[in-house]
Amino acid sequence: MHIINIGNELLFGKTINTNSAFIAEKMTEIGIEAEKLIVIADDPQSIFQTITDSFKETDWIITTGGLGPTKDDMTKNVIAQYFDVGFEIDQSTLETVLKMFSDRGLEAGEINRKQAEIPIGAIVLPNKNGTAPGLWMEKNGKTLIALQGVPFEMQAILQESVIPLLKQKYKGAHAVIHKNLLTAGIGESALAQKIENWESALPKNITLAYLPSPGQVLLRLTARTDNEELAKQAIEEQLPALINIIRPYLVSTENETLVEVVSKLLKKNKKKLAIAESCTGGYISHLITSLPGSSQFFEGSIVSYSNEIKRDILNVRETNLKKYGAVSEFVVNDMALNTMSLFEADYAIATSGIAGPSGGTEEKPIGLVWIAIATPTRVITQKFLFGKNGGREVIIKRAALSALNMLRIELLKDLIISANHDLE
Amino acid sequence: MHIINIGNELLFGKTINTNSAFIAEKMTEIGIEAEKLIVIADDPQSIFQTITDSFKETDWIITTGGLGPTKDDMTKNVIAQYFDVGFEIDQSTLETVLKMFSDRGLEAGEINRKQAEIPIGAIVLPNKNGTAPGLWMEKNGKTLIALQGVPFEMQAILQESVIPLLKQKYKGAHAVIHKNLLTAGIGESALAQKIENWESALPKNITLAYLPSPGQVLLRLTARTDNEELAKQAIEEQLPALINIIRPYLVSTENETLVEVVSKLLKKNKKKLAIAESCTGGYISHLITSLPGSSQFFEGSIVSYSNEIKRDILNVRETNLKKYGAVSEFVVNDMALNTMSLFEADYAIATSGIAGPSGGTEEKPIGLVWIAIATPTRVITQKFLFGKNGGREVIIKRAALSALNMLRIELLKDLIISANHDLE
Repeated sequence: MHIINIGNELLFGKTINTNSAFIAEKMTEIGIEAEKLIVIADDPQSIFQTITDSFKETDWIITTGGLGPTKDDMTKNVIAQYFDVGFEIDQSTLETVLKMFSDRGLEAGEINRKQAEIPIGAIVLPNKNGTAPGLWMEKNGKTLIALQGVPFEMQAILQESVIPLLKQKYKGAHAVIHKNLLTAGIGESALAQKIENWESALPKNITLAYLPSPGQVLLRLTARTDNEELAKQAIEEQLPALINIIRPYLVSTENETLVEVVSKLLKKNKKKLAIAESCTGGYISHLITSLPGSSQFFEGSIVSYSNEIKRDILNVRETNLKKYGAVSEFVVNDMALNTMSLFEADYAIATSGIAGPSGGTEEKPIGLVWIAIATPTRVITQKFLFGKNGGREVIIKRAALSALNMLRIELLKDLIISANHDLE
Repeated sequence: MHIINIGNELLFGKTINTNSAFIAEKMTEIGIEAEKLIVIADDPQSIFQTITDSFKETDWIITTGGLGPTKDDMTKNVIAQYFDVGFEIDQSTLETVLKMFSDRGLEAGEINRKQAEIPIGAIVLPNKNGTAPGLWMEKNGKTLIALQGVPFEMQAILQESVIPLLKQKYKGAHAVIHKNLLTAGIGESALAQKIENWESALPKNITLAYLPSPGQVLLRLTARTDNEELAKQAIEEQLPALINIIRPYLVSTENETLVEVVSKLLKKNKKKLAIAESCTGGYISHLITSLPGSSQFFEGSIVSYSNEIKRDILNVRETNLKKYGAVSEFVVNDMALNTMSLFEADYAIATSGIAGPSGGTEEKPIGLVWIAIATPTRVITQKFLFGKNGGREVIIKRAALSALNMLRIELLKDLIISANHDLE
């Protein structure tokens, strides 16, 4: 299956193409593989040529765009030309168009009546959200499905008409199953080294993708087989060995983000969290408060961007600030403990570091971050060297995710301890 | 120019392809037309075939993806195969790789050293944010530029290395000049109505785009002519009339963000800022602390997610909390004033609202946000109804941007007042 999006605006890069991702995802869900996504201009020659080329590689094309009533909408004409047919009036489309106009007290013009003209032989895919219908053309084993460029029109036609028809007509759909494993606390290449042998031994119908972002790496396993059950089974067989290797870094196998996992652990344990952010500057709080329902476990935070605030509001000991500096184990330790008591929370995070681009020294370089986690029974501190690559934004993100991962690990420890208590 | 994104994850539709839009936009800015955008799998045969096909239609290709250290990264090998060359070690890349690892206290493995292998004859495009460099290959008038799939790595290489080289080597670009005008405090359609007549009278070689995001609308004027001077002039002629209409909403004509404008005003006036965030949950602080040098003017903030914190740490009057509720004019007023004094700041922002998805009532619906700005001489409060469309994330963003825009307006007033004092 090729997906061809037609539209000048997509080529200027001003509009991000969400249509192709939407269609590709829906195809994957019903086991049809999108092999190529193509974006081209509203240009009849280019549309004709691209359709011709794609039909050399595939029997199935979905296009979006160029079905509207204005001069820059060329797709319908090109399709008729490609399939070498003329036009006929589709009565039900004409009625829809006329009704839509009369409902709004308007008269349909010639340009609107033209919307009811369809290439002879096309199956009409009704468009309840607009005037131009989608079109389904078949000839010599090749099928072209032409849909709207306007996302909500396209999405409705795809789901209501195209997918049911595809399920009838598309032969040989593979079942495609994904499994995501989110890891944190290890870089992409170190992770790749650890699982190298396991990865090399994967059967051919299972592929592995590394999707890194600052502070975490998502592993995505994809299995393709003839049916869904077999695909699921194929992945299930590989999981135990993989999980065994990556367990210390494994955050979730359930499509959750790290902050969602932490949030779930806090809610489950009915524990409250407070945060003191220096170098992360509010980003951890933002990640947490972006989750609906975070007020159930999040008390609040203090962003302490100066030493005076660390001293006066967070009660960091002046001697520690003077002797070790704001970016030090002693200061994050004080920050975490005092934030926990100030907010009457059960857990607290504290961060202090040098996010750059200035302010680094040889002893305390840009990218140095100290993180502390205070728990009901202990304070854990850890030093990170994130380097200056990626700049301020990436250092902030790495520090935030590392802090959340440290908290996750401490919460898990406490869960195990309290489970053991319950057993006693 | 063709842009080819390589990556299985893009074909599954789980990841939206922002790379092609980013590159296409940058190409448009320097007058190079992206004629086709293609997405294909991490599959050597498919990569080879697509490169071969595209070079029949164009002399220029940019690829993204497949340059990393893991097994699913195939692009470098295919390029060497396409250009029929072997590999050599690039010394500077090797040094960068080794240094990056030693900076972080880690040992580089064999897999990392392989990153320094480049196809013979390639121009190396340094990657300051990662280990694998970008590659620029030329042969028989065909140029292939291979970049990373990780957006921040790709973006930095594109801007720092690729665009300067393209400007030297790409012939026949049109002059394309953009002018951005950032507005806040007015919606897209209201803005469009205000400037309707001005827009209709624009000459044919100037186009206007509305680029809305929560809380702001960026207007982008684009002029295309044969040379840069003429294009600049064409835009300059249109600006005074436009600025005259949109002045009350105009944030910047200098490609700055709203938070950058606020930061500049605070620095210029040597004033300090503190923030009390309830519904925005740390997002305003994050926007500010993402700016390098924000410690010059930002004291810190308190994210107060519970009434107890508002009362105990922010000294909000209990009577106000009880009588009017946390989301009220009186409470944000208290929050702003007390935050200003707690942090010994000159200005303070306070937000309190209902970000949803639950917690709305008829009287206080989801999307209701109260914002207060405390200045050295007054407190300004404003009520916003952002509606629930777009959900929690959009309400948070709108509230944050609206608060920054309120602060900007108060800072400008104070600037005018202090300028008048200076004149006296």
